[in-house]
Amino acid sequence: MATVGLDVGGTKVLAVALDVDGTVVAERRVPTPRDADGLVGAMVGVVAELRIEADGRGYQVVAVGAGVPGLVTRDGALRFAPNLPGVVEVAVAERGRAATGLPWQVDNDATAALWAEHLLGAARGAGHVALVALGTGIGGGLLLDGGLIRGAHGFAGEIGHVVVDVAGVACPCGRRGCWERYASGSGLGRLGREAAEAGHGARLAALAGGDPLAIRGEHVTAAALEGDPGALAVVDTFADWFAIGLANLVHVLDVERCVVAGGLAAAGEVLLAPIRRAFGRRVVAPDHRPPVAIVAAELGPRAGAVGAALLARQSVAEWCSL
Amino acid sequence: MATVGLDVGGTKVLAVALDVDGTVVAERRVPTPRDADGLVGAMVGVVAELRIEADGRGYQVVAVGAGVPGLVTRDGALRFAPNLPGVVEVAVAERGRAATGLPWQVDNDATAALWAEHLLGAARGAGHVALVALGTGIGGGLLLDGGLIRGAHGFAGEIGHVVVDVAGVACPCGRRGCWERYASGSGLGRLGREAAEAGHGARLAALAGGDPLAIRGEHVTAAALEGDPGALAVVDTFADWFAIGLANLVHVLDVERCVVAGGLAAAGEVLLAPIRRAFGRRVVAPDHRPPVAIVAAELGPRAGAVGAALLARQSVAEWCSL
Repeated sequence: MATVGLDVGGTKVLAVALDVDGTVVAERRVPTPRDADGLVGAMVGVVAELRIEADGRGYQVVAVGAGVPGLVTRDGALRFAPNLPGVVEVAVAERGRAATGLPWQVDNDATAALWAEHLLGAARGAGHVALVALGTGIGGGLLLDGGLIRGAHGFAGEIGHVVVDVAGVACPCGRRGCWERYASGSGLGRLGREAAEAGHGARLAALAGGDPLAIRGEHVTAAALEGDPGALAVVDTFADWFAIGLANLVHVLDVERCVVAGGLAAAGEVLLAPIRRAFGRRVVAPDHRPPVAIVAAELGPRAGAVGAALLARQSVAEWCSL
Repeated sequence: MATVGLDVGGTKVLAVALDVDGTVVAERRVPTPRDADGLVGAMVGVVAELRIEADGRGYQVVAVGAGVPGLVTRDGALRFAPNLPGVVEVAVAERGRAATGLPWQVDNDATAALWAEHLLGAARGAGHVALVALGTGIGGGLLLDGGLIRGAHGFAGEIGHVVVDVAGVACPCGRRGCWERYASGSGLGRLGREAAEAGHGARLAALAGGDPLAIRGEHVTAAALEGDPGALAVVDTFADWFAIGLANLVHVLDVERCVVAGGLAAAGEVLLAPIRRAFGRRVVAPDHRPPVAIVAAELGPRAGAVGAALLARQSVAEWCSL
C-alpha cells in the first residue's frame, strides 16, 4: 500500500507516493494552474499518474493528502490563498474525492511539512514545536502537546501575519508591519537591497549580476558564507527580526523547538547562529526558562508532500481503527 | 467534598472553597506578601482557615488549586512573576503539599480564570478560546481543541509580551512595544493621559480629581459611558490596539471566541463594540473566515480562584480514575 501526498506551491505542484517505511516510491512535478478548476484538475491528474506508476511497482494507493498554502477549512476546502490569487473558496477535498474515488485529507502546506518533520525529521522527539517556513512570506506549522494545531476552522498557523511593527512596511494583506515583511526570504532580499542602496552591498550586487535591485535572499546568504561584512550585517538585522517574531510565538505558545524551513534554511549556521544570539536578547526572562532549540528542517523541499502523504495515512489509520 | 482555589494577585490573595456544583461555600482575602516565604505562608494559612470553615459546614477539602501571575512550570513552581518582583523560583505546589498534606495544582492565573469561564462562564460551548485579562498588563489563557494550552514548560499564554510596535513604548520587561503597553488597563490610562496633554481630556481630568496625571483606565471608560467625545476617541484608539493584538492571536491560533476579562471588562459594550469594529479592519481575509465572538467575561473577580478550585478538582478526578 501507499499514500499520495501533494504540495501545492506558488509555481509548482509536487506529488509523491509514500510507502509504509516513509520511502518515496514515485514522484511527479507539474506547474500550478492559476485558477481553481485548473488547480483541482492538475491535482487529480497527477494523482492518477502516480497511482498508475505506484500500482505498477506493487503499491496500491489508498488515500491522498494535500498541503495547500492558505486558509484551509478542517474539511479540506481552500478558502483563501494569498499566493494563489485566482483561487478562492475551492472544495479541494470534496472534489478530489469525487474525481478519484479515494479519501482526501487537505491541510495547510506548512502544517503538512511540520508533520513530516515531526515523524521523520528535525522535530522528532519534541512535543511543542513551531515550524517557520521562509519563502515569499512566512508559513507556519504548530505542534502542541504532540498534536498539530489547526484552530477552530483550520486557519491556525498564519504566523507570517503577526504584526510586529504597526506602522512598518506595507504588506500585500493590506496592513503594515507583518512579520513576513522582515523575516521571510523576500524580507532578507529587501534588507539586502536596502544595504546596497546605503552603500554596504557591493558584494551582494555583484552576486546579483551587478544589479542592486536584483538582490535576493540567497545572494545575502551566499555573500555571508564568504564572510562579506556587508552581508553579515544584513544577516544580523534579519536575525533580529526573526527573533522578534519567534519570541512572540514562544511567549504565546511556549514551544521548545523552532524548525526553520524553506529554501533559506539550506544556508544553515550562517543564518541560525545569529538567530540564536538575537533570540537570547528578544525573549523575556531568558534566565528563568529552558532554552528554545532553533534548528534547520531536515527533509528539504519534499517535506510538504511527504507530510501530506503521512497525514493521509493517519486519517485512514484512524478510520480503520474506529 | 470541596476544593480550595487561590488566586494570587499583585496586592491580595483571594481564596474560595468550591463545592461539587461550583458554588462558593467559603471565601477569604489576605494581602499578598512581598517575598517567597511570606507568600507560601499566606497561601498555606488561608487554606488552613478555609479548610476549617468548610469542614464546619460539612465540606471536606480534598485538594488545592492556585493561579499565580507569571511563568509557572508544569509541576507547579513559580519561576518568574513580573508583578511580584521579590518572588522567583518558588516550588509553590511542592511546599503547599508538604505544609497541608493535600494535593496542589498550580497554574498561571489567567489559565485558571479561562478554565472557570470555560466550564461556568463566557467560554462555554467553544473549543478554541483566548482569554485576555486586562490589568496592569495583559494576562492570557488559551484553550484549543477543548483543552488548556500550557506549553512545553507551562509558560504559554504570555500574550501581553507579544511585540506589536518594535520601536514603541518601553516595557518593564526590558523591551519595547509589547501589546500590554497599549491594550491593557494601564495602557488605556496612558492613552487617556496623552489625550489630556493634547487638550482633549477635560472630562477625564475632572473624573481623576482634576489631575491629568492621575487619569486611569476606569476614568476613560466612565467618561466614555457618559458620551464624552474625548473619551470616546481614546477608546477608539485603545480598541484599535486591542484589535491589532487580537488579530495576531487569531492568525496564529484561529480561536473562535475572545473572552475579555479583568476589571475593565465591567465597562462592557462601551469597550467591546469599538473593539469588534476595529477587529474587522485588523484581521486578514475577514470575508473568508467566520467571525470571532468578542465577549466579556462572566465570572468577575472570582474567576481565577474558582478556576483554580476547578483545576484542583480535575486533577483529583484524573488521579482517581487511573
